[in-house]
Amino acid sequence: MSQIRSNSEAEIHPILANRWSPRAFAADKPVGRETLLACMEAARWAPSCFGDEPWRFIVCDKASDAASWEKLLAILAPKNQEWAKNTPVLLLVCASTQFRSGKPNRWGEYDSGQAAISFCLQAEALGLASHQMGGFDSDAARKTFAIPNDATPMAVIALGYQAAAAKLDEGFQSIELAERKRQPIGSCFFAGTWKKPIA
Amino acid sequence: MSQIRSNSEAEIHPILANRWSPRAFAADKPVGRETLLACMEAARWAPSCFGDEPWRFIVCDKASDAASWEKLLAILAPKNQEWAKNTPVLLLVCASTQFRSGKPNRWGEYDSGQAAISFCLQAEALGLASHQMGGFDSDAARKTFAIPNDATPMAVIALGYQAAAAKLDEGFQSIELAERKRQPIGSCFFAGTWKKPIA
Repeated sequence: MSQIRSNSEAEIHPILANRWSPRAFAADKPVGRETLLACMEAARWAPSCFGDEPWRFIVCDKASDAASWEKLLAILAPKNQEWAKNTPVLLLVCASTQFRSGKPNRWGEYDSGQAAISFCLQAEALGLASHQMGGFDSDAARKTFAIPNDATPMAVIALGYQAAAAKLDEGFQSIELAERKRQPIGSCFFAGTWKKPIA
Repeated sequence: MSQIRSNSEAEIHPILANRWSPRAFAADKPVGRETLLACMEAARWAPSCFGDEPWRFIVCDKASDAASWEKLLAILAPKNQEWAKNTPVLLLVCASTQFRSGKPNRWGEYDSGQAAISFCLQAEALGLASHQMGGFDSDAARKTFAIPNDATPMAVIALGYQAAAAKLDEGFQSIELAERKRQPIGSCFFAGTWKKPIA
């Protein structure tokens, strides 16, 4: 049920091409422990500056720990809660602001993004769907999950098996079925100097 | 020539498992235009907050623009220059600090990390190797490539075809052949609350 990429410029690997962020998830299909572990393992092998691994994932699996799952669902933006309530696993991704040595790490967020997408790509490879959200209450996340000052809540990942768009509330259906688009490649990829489009 | 992952916990997709960051690159094997375009395309389809695509890549391809490639090589940390001089393509990855609307974007670096690893995974899928570096002079990068204030230089990616470790200067050979390791999974992945190891 991957969507059409409307302005694709080149063939890319299927797990990169087919990964997208749906809203329709099957509430009745939990994610097995081994599957979840494989997604974490993919995140774990992401590269990081000085090999510091500055990402921290809090896994809230409704099947094994409904209380933490409910807590994480509750701090999502209301519009996200409307569809995320059907995802069996929610994860809070945090970025460490310091290296393990205690020195500031200016790559903490960058590297946490690398780990998060690696998680999502492994999910895609295993036939699951994922959807990262910036729309959540970061302060509430910090309080609810006791995130220390040297970590920054960055995203919530919804993970599960995709369902048909028809399962969604009507307001979400047109978004779910819309073509995927990106900026023209020359808007973000430059040849040798700033702003010179590569293509 | 992928390395052994010494403390792997689960099987993951080969392009995630085999991607790593070597130092030995074949100086005499340029990267074709189509190949480079496919790697950019993979980065382009990374997810981003509000679909803003806050990453900016400056591509410095020695084969087509030796001058910009030389400039980027020159601002790498001296230790990185020693091996990166053999990589046919160097890319400077920058993160926008603002959404296209002009409002601050706190996910610019996180999302740029997602695009960068997507680039590297597509390279892996096509039989190339990549190596991201935080070790470069960010201020010099800003001046040399006219990076505006609303973008942050985050990493330089070296891209090319891998060569045998024996091609490296002796000091690099043991690092190149060392086992890949990660923190125990419970060090970065928590169950339902901060610091409770998931496994």
